[in-house]
Amino acid sequence: MMYIGIDLGGTNIAAALVDETYCIAARKSIPTRAQRPALEIIADMAALAKELMMENNLTVGDIAWVGIGVPGSVDSKNGVVIYCCNIGFDNTPVAALFREYLDVPVFLGNDADCAALAEVYAGAAKGVDNAILITLGTGLGGGIIINRQIYNGFNGCGGELGHVVIVKDGHPCPCGRKGCWEQYSSATALIRMTAEALEGDRDRTSAMWKRIGNDLTCVSGRTAFEAARAGDPLGLAVVEAYASYLACGIVSMINIFQPEVFCIGGGISNEGPYLLDTLVEKVKKEVYTRGDRQTLLRFAALKNDAGIVGAALLGK
Amino acid sequence: MMYIGIDLGGTNIAAALVDETYCIAARKSIPTRAQRPALEIIADMAALAKELMMENNLTVGDIAWVGIGVPGSVDSKNGVVIYCCNIGFDNTPVAALFREYLDVPVFLGNDADCAALAEVYAGAAKGVDNAILITLGTGLGGGIIINRQIYNGFNGCGGELGHVVIVKDGHPCPCGRKGCWEQYSSATALIRMTAEALEGDRDRTSAMWKRIGNDLTCVSGRTAFEAARAGDPLGLAVVEAYASYLACGIVSMINIFQPEVFCIGGGISNEGPYLLDTLVEKVKKEVYTRGDRQTLLRFAALKNDAGIVGAALLGK
Repeated sequence: MMYIGIDLGGTNIAAALVDETYCIAARKSIPTRAQRPALEIIADMAALAKELMMENNLTVGDIAWVGIGVPGSVDSKNGVVIYCCNIGFDNTPVAALFREYLDVPVFLGNDADCAALAEVYAGAAKGVDNAILITLGTGLGGGIIINRQIYNGFNGCGGELGHVVIVKDGHPCPCGRKGCWEQYSSATALIRMTAEALEGDRDRTSAMWKRIGNDLTCVSGRTAFEAARAGDPLGLAVVEAYASYLACGIVSMINIFQPEVFCIGGGISNEGPYLLDTLVEKVKKEVYTRGDRQTLLRFAALKNDAGIVGAALLGK
Repeated sequence: MMYIGIDLGGTNIAAALVDETYCIAARKSIPTRAQRPALEIIADMAALAKELMMENNLTVGDIAWVGIGVPGSVDSKNGVVIYCCNIGFDNTPVAALFREYLDVPVFLGNDADCAALAEVYAGAAKGVDNAILITLGTGLGGGIIINRQIYNGFNGCGGELGHVVIVKDGHPCPCGRKGCWEQYSSATALIRMTAEALEGDRDRTSAMWKRIGNDLTCVSGRTAFEAARAGDPLGLAVVEAYASYLACGIVSMINIFQPEVFCIGGGISNEGPYLLDTLVEKVKKEVYTRGDRQTLLRFAALKNDAGIVGAALLGK
């Protein structure tokens, strides 16, 4: 049997045929054009799935199920998208509507949850029962896997690990709270922290100024890491502060979940061992665990494919 | 069938016969004398269970299992206590040793986890699948119930909700971290916050001074609440600050778990609606949940019996 995974993003709808070894056999993608009515987008997703089947000489009987990952919260039991920030899918029975075009079992999941599921079946947490994935990008997304299943609470809204406060009354978060982990550990937060550090560097002694062409709007998530690797003291200080906030949240999550593997994904995970070694050291110092059975800290392995592979696994 | 629950505390070993409706049919208790060798304590637990059976005309065939709740982390799969802070049970195969005295199935659990399980089967979270319990006492204990089962991670050390940092670099915690939730929301923390507020009240205008007979060592977890109810401004300020820290952690836990019910137990829960209403209001303002399916905040219902009833449920 084959599985179809669909990653519904704000920009593109990506679909793939995934085989029983969790490998992508074929893929297709179209623009989402997110402002359109939900029904049009659902029709396009179904058409994309059908094209994948036809181009690979498959019929409905060859497809075990279709899984759809969406950037929002879902009632997976009833196949309903509850809330979807960028796409007008609120309270839409996506599974039922999709089946009007293609009559196969349809499963829905949150995109970060899908990514976590993929890492457990085919990535950095392969083979374990319990894992946590955080994705460090524009925000800080979270996925909780317990007994090889997505856990997202009774209402489909759980796993919002980025909206755990680590600095009470700290930096304001669009969610309405102050001091959320996301405000200190997302790529966006790292960019803010780098820019703030440069703003405080009145004499422009940091080598980061040259890297950004003296233009603060050119600061990226890599600026401080690149400078730190080259020995720039301000870059080192920013990376140290950032890693300290990131480790703070990771230790809290480990103290709660004690998963076999804690995965870190998103752009920041490209910083490799330089970041991972620092995190491992900081986490080891603070974690509550007694004994030698400690959570392993790893970068996510599936990169951009995690969402689509995880969507294809939703029926598991 | 009947079940035997044993709550192994630092001071007393409490055992009870629990029936199929989760009611206590009979109970017995003896001092733990925690400094003794583990084998002596285990022999005493077995003797206590046998006495309960004999006095109630039951034989081994009437007992489905014995569950033992311990104040530490356990490998429930193998019936081994991994770590137990006040009792010398580290790495002890308690289930196997107990069965040398009484040959029935034996299950081990952490005491806070047992209390959470009891609330789900017979208490404030009766009938739900997912619940979180925190116990506000000397420390801040946590229990996680997912799909009506205790969740404690791959190594039995999970659920340490009190050791989630809510104030980075805040008040030192014996666990080695700084700013743990426990340091702001346990009864011990409330006593510290009350005493600190009084120390800052140089003119002794607060009515709390009279309540404690001008003796700061007489501050209890009730001092600020009693004063606040009587309209004392300093008492009101302490309760407001305390409730704010408590709500901060609760919101984070709801954002992670989205359980049907979030239970609060321990001495502080005796403050009743005065505290609960404040918490409900604060939580509602901050929680990430969209839609009307919101976590219910409740005080634990089983009080001191939660540990023993939950232990009896460990085989479920």
